[in-house]
Amino acid sequence: MKTQAIPAPVTSGPAANQAQRMQTLRLRVLEAHRVLFDSGLTTLTWGNVSQVDREAGLIAIKPSGVRYQDLTPETIVVVDLEGNKVAGELRPSSDTPTHAALYRAFAGVQGIAHNHSSYATMFCQAEAEIPCLGTTHADLFHGPVPVTRQLTPLEVESGYEVNTGLVIVERFRSLDPAAMPGVLVAGHAPFTWGKDAMAAVEAMITLEEVAKLAWGTLSLRPTTPPLAGHIVAKHYSRKHGPKAYYGQC
Amino acid sequence: MKTQAIPAPVTSGPAANQAQRMQTLRLRVLEAHRVLFDSGLTTLTWGNVSQVDREAGLIAIKPSGVRYQDLTPETIVVVDLEGNKVAGELRPSSDTPTHAALYRAFAGVQGIAHNHSSYATMFCQAEAEIPCLGTTHADLFHGPVPVTRQLTPLEVESGYEVNTGLVIVERFRSLDPAAMPGVLVAGHAPFTWGKDAMAAVEAMITLEEVAKLAWGTLSLRPTTPPLAGHIVAKHYSRKHGPKAYYGQC
Amino acid sequence: MKTQAIPAPVTSGPAANQAQRMQTLRLRVLEAHRVLFDSGLTTLTWGNVSQVDREAGLIAIKPSGVRYQDLTPETIVVVDLEGNKVAGELRPSSDTPTHAALYRAFAGVQGIAHNHSSYATMFCQAEAEIPCLGTTHADLFHGPVPVTRQLTPLEVESGYEVNTGLVIVERFRSLDPAAMPGVLVAGHAPFTWGKDAMAAVEAMITLEEVAKLAWGTLSLRPTTPPLAGHIVAKHYSRKHGPKAYYGQC
Amino acid sequence: MKTQAIPAPVTSGPAANQAQRMQTLRLRVLEAHRVLFDSGLTTLTWGNVSQVDREAGLIAIKPSGVRYQDLTPETIVVVDLEGNKVAGELRPSSDTPTHAALYRAFAGVQGIAHNHSSYATMFCQAEAEIPCLGTTHADLFHGPVPVTRQLTPLEVESGYEVNTGLVIVERFRSLDPAAMPGVLVAGHAPFTWGKDAMAAVEAMITLEEVAKLAWGTLSLRPTTPPLAGHIVAKHYSRKHGPKAYYGQC
Repeated sequence: MKTQAIPAPVTSGPAANQAQRMQTLRLRVLEAHRVLFDSGLTTLTWGNVSQVDREAGLIAIKPSGVRYQDLTPETIVVVDLEGNKVAGELRPSSDTPTHAALYRAFAGVQGIAHNHSSYATMFCQAEAEIPCLGTTHADLFHGPVPVTRQLTPLEVESGYEVNTGLVIVERFRSLDPAAMPGVLVAGHAPFTWGKDAMAAVEAMITLEEVAKLAWGTLSLRPTTPPLAGHIVAKHYSRKHGPKAYYGQC
Repeated sequence: MKTQAIPAPVTSGPAANQAQRMQTLRLRVLEAHRVLFDSGLTTLTWGNVSQVDREAGLIAIKPSGVRYQDLTPETIVVVDLEGNKVAGELRPSSDTPTHAALYRAFAGVQGIAHNHSSYATMFCQAEAEIPCLGTTHADLFHGPVPVTRQLTPLEVESGYEVNTGLVIVERFRSLDPAAMPGVLVAGHAPFTWGKDAMAAVEAMITLEEVAKLAWGTLSLRPTTPPLAGHIVAKHYSRKHGPKAYYGQC
Repeated sequence: MKTQAIPAPVTSGPAANQAQRMQTLRLRVLEAHRVLFDSGLTTLTWGNVSQVDREAGLIAIKPSGVRYQDLTPETIVVVDLEGNKVAGELRPSSDTPTHAALYRAFAGVQGIAHNHSSYATMFCQAEAEIPCLGTTHADLFHGPVPVTRQLTPLEVESGYEVNTGLVIVERFRSLDPAAMPGVLVAGHAPFTWGKDAMAAVEAMITLEEVAKLAWGTLSLRPTTPPLAGHIVAKHYSRKHGPKAYYGQC
Repeated sequence: MKTQAIPAPVTSGPAANQAQRMQTLRLRVLEAHRVLFDSGLTTLTWGNVSQVDREAGLIAIKPSGVRYQDLTPETIVVVDLEGNKVAGELRPSSDTPTHAALYRAFAGVQGIAHNHSSYATMFCQAEAEIPCLGTTHADLFHGPVPVTRQLTPLEVESGYEVNTGLVIVERFRSLDPAAMPGVLVAGHAPFTWGKDAMAAVEAMITLEEVAKLAWGTLSLRPTTPPLAGHIVAKHYSRKHGPKAYYGQC
């Protein structure tokens, strides 16, 4: 993957600004794909990452069916929030309508990742939420990671990808996407999100490890109870919210 | 692995054409072995890939017992559709009669891969088909991945490898090899196929991930039902047939 | 990670000596993080290693939330045995009070590692000790690897990290940290220790493999009994104590 | 690891010949360790490989506790068939008496490998033989891979390592080491062997994959029956004995 910047156009004014924003978005999305690929969680061309610039009204996303090794800034497709292509030669990911639906519904989300990571996908296939069994989970996901319902035949026919987004939104009616940055789509695979594309990828890496830990823990002791509430609360607040004291800021 | 082209003979006419076709076939098969090796699914020298040129009547296949790192275009063996050697110094894979039998029976198949990938082989050993539990499976395999019956003592004695091909063909009497590009040979290991050697290898990589997902899903929830039919149909048609819209063409 | 030495200050006397000791400590801790990272057992920035210089009263430890690839000698934070920062621009690991509490209680320990290694963490989540099922375990851990109790709400509120250290110490009332260089914190993850940071990391690598072996053995045969006592004793004494004859000294 | 040849002494005659043989043995053993290390099956410094030159009466073996990356021809220790050191600065592997006992008892064996590979060790810890469930197993191991009995306290005290060799030999009273090139030592780990050090390492790699396959197959279907005898016989004879037709000779 080549990460050098696209030469910025020499004009100035609003159009130049828009071009600059588009370029930044593509570079961020490219870099997030590189981290996803290096994580070893991808197979073939499955999985895609996007980032939105809400002020510019633009989403940058992976082109469909292209290998991670072949991605360059120019191959990243740019669409608007309805999923209509704005820039790029290639077709955007077939999952683009799902990403766009989530950006429209979750105002605080700026980056989304989708991947068929093994352990998280096992929970999707079993239509089983991932219980919070330890602090690794509680550090990022505030409660069990939820599963959507399956789409109806009508929903599949009338717009499979956009309706995949809408059943996720439906599942989050009583959940906060900021406190639960991921979901298991029943019979399919997970989506994760965050403040940008890189945060979404890091949530995907965390989700996979959390799923693996839960899978192995339940194999070892099927009746393992959830982590005690006071420890859940402590670990979440160590990393999130006004009293956070993990990391460097 | 060295992938530079074999210098083409300077003659012209039908013989030169045949030499050119043979060279192309060897390079394609070499590259497919490289991808199989890089996938991490191979152990020692187990596993082999082939591609057929039906017009030329030639199959290129791995030499027997040679390490993937030592393969060059010249080491790839060329045989006819009866499995008789046409070119190459080395012995072809001992599984060559299986490949040839499949090419004779499955007119639409141009590439075949065989490997002892861990999870797919577990299903072979358990003589259990891989149920379709999610979209990862449905994207390539239209229905559960079938298992052959075991060979009889007479079939083993009278031609073990060719009869391995024939029990696969027998298992596909009511199945379409285009919609089900792989099979589990009972007590042995999987074969996959496609439009060329590379497609067969990608089917092998997909089969292994699908087998791993099913294995882990059944461990988590032994009674997991198959994916609903309307979602199976949707995912398969997204990638295959006249209404496909995944990828760049 | 850059491992070149920090230029030593040109002064002499006790202050120069202290600076030299601090530099040595940082380099040792940096190198131990490199080995932990190369082991493949880390995810994102989870996990941290420290080493104490008891004479100088200094602990060197990983900065919080920094990637292993970005560590340099200067980024390693130095604190005293109460966990107060002595040197370094960055915040020390949020687990620093746990490390410090262990150093204060376990006089023979000079290095500590913490990580969310998959299999060891499964046992933590299941609140199950790791039984000694074979010589791989007995070579380092003299008996089953113990699990702490969970912290009470009061302990979490009044000082989560220091109390994590204290429940470990409580669990070791009747155990010898030299003969049992690791512990499973209930619902959280393991800590390991040794004569220096590198020994603590090697104990972490061993603990993970021992946990994986126990996990798989119990899956294969849930009623596997512990290794016979006379073999436990033999393997431990081959590597430890006055009659040790493993290795080069 | 540096693999360049040790400069041969310039003398001639029987002593020069012995030096040449010793050098060859060391280089073979070094190369076999490299393949074992590259296989990814080793942890820390566990595992060791040896090769015997029966005419010269010499065994070359790994030094104790040395990292694979630090091995050079000179570090490989040479002992006689009683295990007494003949050449080398370092201590030989603590498992040397086991290797020597096997060479004395199994006349056809020229190379031995020992390692704590994960899945094979799980079977050792469960004291469960590895049933022959498929052709991957049958290609190398003719029947279930056997488990030894545990050593008695007296055997542990009077010579733990040599008696480990002797209980393996006892277990092979009615087995042919040529048809069964490996064993599971109860509560410990596997040993494998072959015509030289490299063949022993390849048997170790095969044993681990066979153990993983059996482990996963039994998890999927606990009552999986052994592979039918006529297929076992066919696969073994494809690779071994007068009618072998796998590979290039």
